[in-house]
Order: sequence, then structure tokens, then C-alpha cells
Amino acid sequence: DLPLTIIAGPCQLESADHAQMIAGRMVEVCAAAGAQYVFKGSFDKANRTSVRGERGVGVEEGLAILQGVKDRFGCPVLTDIHAPDQCAPVAEVADILQIPAFLCRQTDLLLAAGKTGAAINIKKGQFLAPWDMANVVAKVESTGNTRILQTERGVSFGYNTLVTDMRSLPIMARGGYPVVMDATHAVAQPGGQGDSSGGQREFAPVMARAAVALGIAAVFIETHEAPDTAPSDGPNMVKLDDMPALVVSLMQFDQLAKADPIRL
Amino acid sequence: DLPLTIIAGPCQLESADHAQMIAGRMVEVCAAAGAQYVFKGSFDKANRTSVRGERGVGVEEGLAILQGVKDRFGCPVLTDIHAPDQCAPVAEVADILQIPAFLCRQTDLLLAAGKTGAAINIKKGQFLAPWDMANVVAKVESTGNTRILQTERGVSFGYNTLVTDMRSLPIMARGGYPVVMDATHAVAQPGGQGDSSGGQREFAPVMARAAVALGIAAVFIETHEAPDTAPSDGPNMVKLDDMPALVVSLMQFDQLAKADPIRL
Amino acid sequence: DLPLTIIAGPCQLESADHAQMIAGRMVEVCAAAGAQYVFKGSFDKANRTSVRGERGVGVEEGLAILQGVKDRFGCPVLTDIHAPDQCAPVAEVADILQIPAFLCRQTDLLLAAGKTGAAINIKKGQFLAPWDMANVVAKVESTGNTRILQTERGVSFGYNTLVTDMRSLPIMARGGYPVVMDATHAVAQPGGQGDSSGGQREFAPVMARAAVALGIAAVFIETHEAPDTAPSDGPNMVKLDDMPALVVSLMQFDQLAKADPIRL
Amino acid sequence: DLPLTIIAGPCQLESADHAQMIAGRMVEVCAAAGAQYVFKGSFDKANRTSVRGERGVGVEEGLAILQGVKDRFGCPVLTDIHAPDQCAPVAEVADILQIPAFLCRQTDLLLAAGKTGAAINIKKGQFLAPWDMANVVAKVESTGNTRILQTERGVSFGYNTLVTDMRSLPIMARGGYPVVMDATHAVAQPGGQGDSSGGQREFAPVMARAAVALGIAAVFIETHEAPDTAPSDGPNMVKLDDMPALVVSLMQFDQLAKADPIRL
Repeated sequence: DLPLTIIAGPCQLESADHAQMIAGRMVEVCAAAGAQYVFKGSFDKANRTSVRGERGVGVEEGLAILQGVKDRFGCPVLTDIHAPDQCAPVAEVADILQIPAFLCRQTDLLLAAGKTGAAINIKKGQFLAPWDMANVVAKVESTGNTRILQTERGVSFGYNTLVTDMRSLPIMARGGYPVVMDATHAVAQPGGQGDSSGGQREFAPVMARAAVALGIAAVFIETHEAPDTAPSDGPNMVKLDDMPALVVSLMQFDQLAKADPIRL
Repeated sequence: DLPLTIIAGPCQLESADHAQMIAGRMVEVCAAAGAQYVFKGSFDKANRTSVRGERGVGVEEGLAILQGVKDRFGCPVLTDIHAPDQCAPVAEVADILQIPAFLCRQTDLLLAAGKTGAAINIKKGQFLAPWDMANVVAKVESTGNTRILQTERGVSFGYNTLVTDMRSLPIMARGGYPVVMDATHAVAQPGGQGDSSGGQREFAPVMARAAVALGIAAVFIETHEAPDTAPSDGPNMVKLDDMPALVVSLMQFDQLAKADPIRL
Repeated sequence: DLPLTIIAGPCQLESADHAQMIAGRMVEVCAAAGAQYVFKGSFDKANRTSVRGERGVGVEEGLAILQGVKDRFGCPVLTDIHAPDQCAPVAEVADILQIPAFLCRQTDLLLAAGKTGAAINIKKGQFLAPWDMANVVAKVESTGNTRILQTERGVSFGYNTLVTDMRSLPIMARGGYPVVMDATHAVAQPGGQGDSSGGQREFAPVMARAAVALGIAAVFIETHEAPDTAPSDGPNMVKLDDMPALVVSLMQFDQLAKADPIRL
Repeated sequence: DLPLTIIAGPCQLESADHAQMIAGRMVEVCAAAGAQYVFKGSFDKANRTSVRGERGVGVEEGLAILQGVKDRFGCPVLTDIHAPDQCAPVAEVADILQIPAFLCRQTDLLLAAGKTGAAINIKKGQFLAPWDMANVVAKVESTGNTRILQTERGVSFGYNTLVTDMRSLPIMARGGYPVVMDATHAVAQPGGQGDSSGGQREFAPVMARAAVALGIAAVFIETHEAPDTAPSDGPNMVKLDDMPALVVSLMQFDQLAKADPIRL
């Protein structure tokens, strides 16, 4: 029942300066609102819709950028990994390793991530029922690592559409590990723009608020100073300038929710 | 931006005494919590899963029961109608005529209901996109009646399952008419028990809270002193004894939501 | 294991001449191909997307048109009914009363239809699991009428989209009553054109063929000489000129399927 | 418009003897029926529901088993790969590399597979619209490899359930590459048995026949002499003893379909 954590940052790590600009702003915003903060950024977009989509800065430069954010702001950093052999080197910098939704059933990746001892944030696959996360979590637990987070990011609903079932949050919470709402990818429209994904940025605060009212541990939300020109996920990232009001608002709902927990 | 309205009552009208017992309890609960209250009860269950399911007391006795609740407690009453020729007589007693979700595209029923001048609560069909409610609403508007409510009650998601897309609430709100969350039927499992519908009563407060946090006008919630022995919808009705705490909790989220409205 | 029946005609009955033109053509086409034929036409479109959609010729003129088709061609005729009090008069002319998909759980309509003694074709609701048709069928059986047909016409799949689960055909067949594939409405896109439904005419033969290969009793397919100017369901009706080749092709698959039945 | 290819074998490679027993039987069955035959077997089950599920014989033993099948029967062999570095060594034995459905958007895997020059069978993700396979195919094409197969294996439909949209077969075929129906995984019930997947073996022939009637290039079907005791996918594998009749039946529908192609 700790105060809400905000996991926020750009979809892709772009440069050290860019990361520090966003992290700096979010550190201030979260401190002012009483929220915990984790910086998020990807060094590789391994599953772009199109082969022409930008991939990112790569693991070496990515880790340097993340280390820079840690050194300057002292906040934990999260990044996603895509192959077992990335886990150990990435865990030397990243505090939280994130398992992408498409890869949430790849046993070797879950085991390699778990073995690092880092915290592991598992995104629930778009094809997975919330109760089936117990099997996914058990794969990480089998390594002895119980520093686990479970993230809702929407489930397939017809073609090119996701829907978020709010029941999934308390269902996953039964497993005993913190639950995160990914408000950015829950409003993505996979493949919705032909050769890239669309998104509904305007609904990210809607999903975040509804989820926070249920008493979750953290909200994951991608943000950028100019989402429409960002190299990926532009349509569903929240403008950095909109984050202060959003975080303040979410913290109010969080306080109320934590004081009045839902018990199933 | 009026305070939240609670639309609550038993699934079926059972008897005058039963209706008054529930209405009396809810009047107190809502008054204490600062909520507006509408009594809800059905005189006919016209679309039971099985032909052996209990149908209800019928229109004549049903209207007498509803009139009794109005006379004693002065609260508005809502009931659902299933055929055009029921609309005029039912509107002599009921303040709100409800269009069942399966029937939300039956033009004649919408027109007959609209012509009564009563308020019309339209349940969004399990097969309908939220943006398609605009066409449904326009059918009622074509009668000159603009006293319209729009209710979310879940959308088909695979077999025997519904999911509630929280985006549907702000999408429907764009139409300018109040939006209601039906927390009871959103957690139904249609056909889920072979020859009757199942339900997940424990998730009704989850759906209600998430929706209220988004600033909706009303929550629809069926309640019974002994749901497990009720003639219909037992698995998803909330126990009457659990309503006081639930209403108090929802009002807190309502206050916060109304002070901090989501703007799309 | 009789040869395939083709249930075909325009979405709406337009005029006596128009109905006879289509019926005449289809009678020839089916006779040449060895198929049984049932003429189909609606006298009222009771659930148009928009209140401005054309409703049809009405019950009186509609029945006269259907009687004219019977008198001239001797083929059975099918039409859909929307209210209990329509059943008896319509059954004086129509050989098969059809229950619309949205109305497949309206008990009074099913009972009134069943009581006429006519054959009853029940369309499976877009919200219904195939195994739940057993409860729907039992409502008609409770009237003593066992002349029942069950029609697949797609199930809700996200928004504005239907999908046809081919498993539903053998599942419904377990009930012992003939199974029909509605190849026209299975490729509709409900609400897909804003204030009317879209459709994918090109996939109607795809759905028909796949279903016929499984050994079903009948295919329902709407046809029009100029679908794009028809008053309703234009986007998914098959051109009348394309019907001869389609029926011949389906009969070949039917012969093979009936000689090699799938047994579950 | 070549005759149908049957891609069949056990879910997991179990031993050289076991593989040869199944391959030998299938070679005979397909030769007798006039079908082309590809042996299928997995050396690693990389995404089991549970960490306790059996993984398989591994890449070294797996390749030896596959080589043995090729040497003895001269048929092409297919196996699935899960990491980029597996592609080159596996392609030295396997004629067709298969991209698992969960991994169909992992760019590096698609590129590494494409670069081997082997034929690549891409399974469409459970979360992917059929028209979005064009982007997936383009990733392989970007390597200069155009020996591509596209496989339908069902799409997420609510929780623990897949549905096969038959329209996906002609939609994918528009891309110009052969289309395969995976009749085994299309009837899986992911997570449907708690810590393993369920399945509906009885519907595999249903899906296969409906797809073959549409004129596809190949059917993928897993088979085992005793599915209920197989180490994985038991509930949806077809009994080896049922394959001869099934293949003969499918070839009849294939002949008819190839003589009467669907043109969109």
C-alpha cells in the first residue's frame, strides 16, 4: 500500500541529453506529487510492425544512457530485453528488466531474466487470460527470484484493437505481486496504420485513472516532448507537458484507493 | 456534474413488500451518502436463457408495485419494456423506461418509448460499438424526446463472456447524454451455467468504481437480500447488506472525479 | 442427407414484379443444379442501423408478394417476424418463419412462432455461443413444434466486425435440427459505414463454400440484380448474375460432403 | 495449383525410432492419396504454458532425428526455431524453418531465418490481423528470400479460446505466397487446462476440410499414435490411425477446390 509509482519515459532511448531532459522533468513532477518514479526507455524495438521502423540505439549506447540517468537523478531505471543473453549485461545497469508482451511465454527469456536477481516486470501477452499469468510468474519464481511485477497492457479484441479488462488487475493481484497498468500500450491499435501501429493518446489518462482507482501499484506511461515526431509509439505517448497535471490527478485517486482497498 | 445517481433494486419485482424493503433500505443508504436514488425492478424477464426461467409478476402487478414504491418513498422508478405497446401504459407509472440491450436496435420500440416523453435509458447492445450508440440515440431523438440515458453493460468477448471497455464511457458521453455503468450485467456470464447465466458478483464493485472514477452520471446495480436464492441474476447481484459501504465508497470517487473531469 | 437447399432472395421485398423476377431466376438456377430452393424476402427491416434507413413494404403488401411467388413458382417462402402478434398472420402465407438474430432470446416471440406450426428458422445471436442454441431451440420445442432450423450468421469479434466459427456448424448439428449458413450476414460489418452497415460481398462465397464442405443442410444467401442500389444490405448481397456459377459450385462440394460426413 | 501438401508429424521429436515410425506411415498414406508430404517435428518447446512442461530433445539430437527421416524417406522436413542463432545450423538440415506464432513480429528472428535461404513458414500470431501478415512477410523478403509460407492457426477470441476466420486464407493468399492451415493449433485452448493447454482434437478435421475447400496449398496437422500420453499438445493431435481416412478425404476436397478456384 505504498503510494503509486509512475514508470515513465520515452518509448525509445534517443540520446543521453534527451533521456536526461525527460527524466529530470519526471523526477520533479513525481517528487512534487508524492509519487515514486522509475525511468523507462528501450534500447531496441525488436518487434516493429515494419522492417523499416527504427530499431533504436542498441544495447551498448542504451545502457550508457540509462547509467547516466541513474547517476544524475538516482532513480531506478527499467528497460526491456528480447533475448536470454541480453539479461545479464542489461541487469548490471537496469533495476527492472521488462519482458515484452509477445515474449511472455518464452521460457528461456523468463529464466535468464529471473536469474539476474533484478526485478522483473512481465507484460501480460495480448493473447493471455489474466489467470494464466500465474504460470508465467511461476517460471520466474522457479529461479528463486520473487521480485516480480505484472503489467496489464490490453488483450486482443477483434483485429487491430485491444481492450483492457479491468477485472484483470485484481485477478493478477491475487498472485501477490504488484500490478502495473500500462496506459500507453493499452490504447495502441496494433497495425492500425498499415505499416505502423496507431494509438489513441487521449484515452491513456482514462485507462490510467480507472486502474489507479482500483488500487494498483504503478502506472506505466510513455511520454515525449513531441510525440508526433517520435521514432515509435507516437500516436499513444502522452505529451510531456501534460504529465504534471496527470500525475497530480492520479495521486489523488491513488490516495483514495489505497485508503479503501478492493478485496475480492 | 450532479452527484452520482444510484439506480438499484432487485432484478425481478417479487412483491410489494419486497420492493418496499429494498427501496426503503436504498433510500436511506443513498440519502446518508449524498447520492441520488432511482428504484429499479423488472416486471417481466422476456429473454431468459431457458424457457423454464421465471418470467416475473407481469405488467399489471409490476406497475402497482412500482407505484407503491413511488408513493411511499417519492423516488423515481425505472423498469424495462420489451414491446412497443407496453411503453405508454408503463410510462404512466415509470419515470424511466429502459430499453434492453438485445433490443437496442429495434426501431419501433425506441420510437414508442421516445413518444411517451418519459426518460429513456438505452442499454448498449452486447454487439454494439460505443460510437454506434449515436444512431440508436438518434432514433429516440427523432420523436422529440431528448431525456436520454446511455448504459454500458459490457460487450461480447469470445463465448459466454463480456468485457467492459472503459473507453466506451467517455465515447458515449461525447453524445451529450448522461452515461450509466451497469455494474451488474457487465459481470454476467451469459449462458455460463448451461441453462442460466452465471456471474461474478465480486467484480461488480470493481466495475462500478473504475467507471465512477471516470466521472459518469449513474451506476446501475442490482441488489437483493439473498441473491443466491433470487429468481434471476443471482450470481451477479450485490448483497443488500454490502450496499451501504459500496455507495459510500463510490461517492468518494464520484466527488473526486467530478472535481477533476476527464476532457477528451 | 438431402441435397443442399438454397435459401435466397432480396434483403427487402421491393415489389411483386421484383420478387418474381428474382424467384424465377433462382428457381431455374437451383433446378438446373439439383438444389432445393426457398425464396426469402423481408417485409419489414425492424432494426436498421439508422432511423432513416428504409423499412420495407409492410406486412400486408409483403404477404401478398410472398403469396404471389408461391402461386407462380410453387417454392416455399421464408420471411422474418419481429413481434409475437405477427406470427399467426404471417404463418398463413410463409412456410418458414425466421427469428432475427438480435431477437433469438425473446421468449414470447419464439413461443408465438412455434405455436403456428410453421417451420422456424432461428438465427443464432451475434452474442451467443453455439452450444447455447440448445436453450433457444428448447423454447420452440416447448410449443410442440419440432420443425426447427438453426442458422449461423457470425459472432461479435471486436467492434463492427463478425467472425464465423466453423466449429459452430457441427456443434449446432448435434442438436439434431438442420443447420443453415447465412453467408450474407456473416460478412456484414455492423455499423461499418457510420449510419449503415458495411459488408464484404466478395467473402460470401468463401463462407458458403467452407460451410457446405462440412455437410450443412442449407445456405442462406441474399441476392439482387443491382446490390449497390438496393434499399438495404447492398454491400453484402451477391449479384444475381453470379448466382448460377455459385450454386453449381456449392452443389459439387455438397455432394462430396454428404458422401463423406463429418462425425464428431 | 499443385495437389495439397500434408505437413504432419508429432508435436515434439521424441526419438529417432518414433520419428521414423510416424514419417514412414505418413509417407505411405500421402503417396497412396496423391498428396505431397512434409515431416514436422519440434526439437524444443520454448513457450510451454508451465515451466514444468517437457521441453524436448534439444537442437543437436533433434537435427539428427530430422536428418534420419530425410535420409530414409527422402521427404522434406520442417522444424520451428526460436532464436536467431539457431537459424543457420538448423537450416543445414531442415528444408523449412518455421517461425512460431508468438514470435512472428520478432524482426531479428525473421531476418536470420530469411538469410539462410531455406523456405520459411511464418505462423500468423494469435494477435495479428490477416492483412498485417504483409508486414511480416516483407521482413523475410528484405533478406532476398521469397520462399515463404503463411500459416493460419487461429486468432484470440476472448480468454483461453481461438477462432479461425476463414476469410484470412484468401486474404493472406493475396500476398502471393502459399497459405497453410494449421488444423491442430487452431483447435487448441491456450491455458485451458490450468497449467497446460487444452484442445479439441475432434474439430481438427473440421478446420482442415473447410480450409482445403477454399483451395489452400497445405494442411499442417500434428499426429501421434497415442496423443493422450504425448509430451505436449496431446488434446489436439489427431490419432495416427485416423490419418489415412482424413488424408484421402482432404484430397477429394482439394481436387474439387483446385478445379474451381475462389477468386477475390
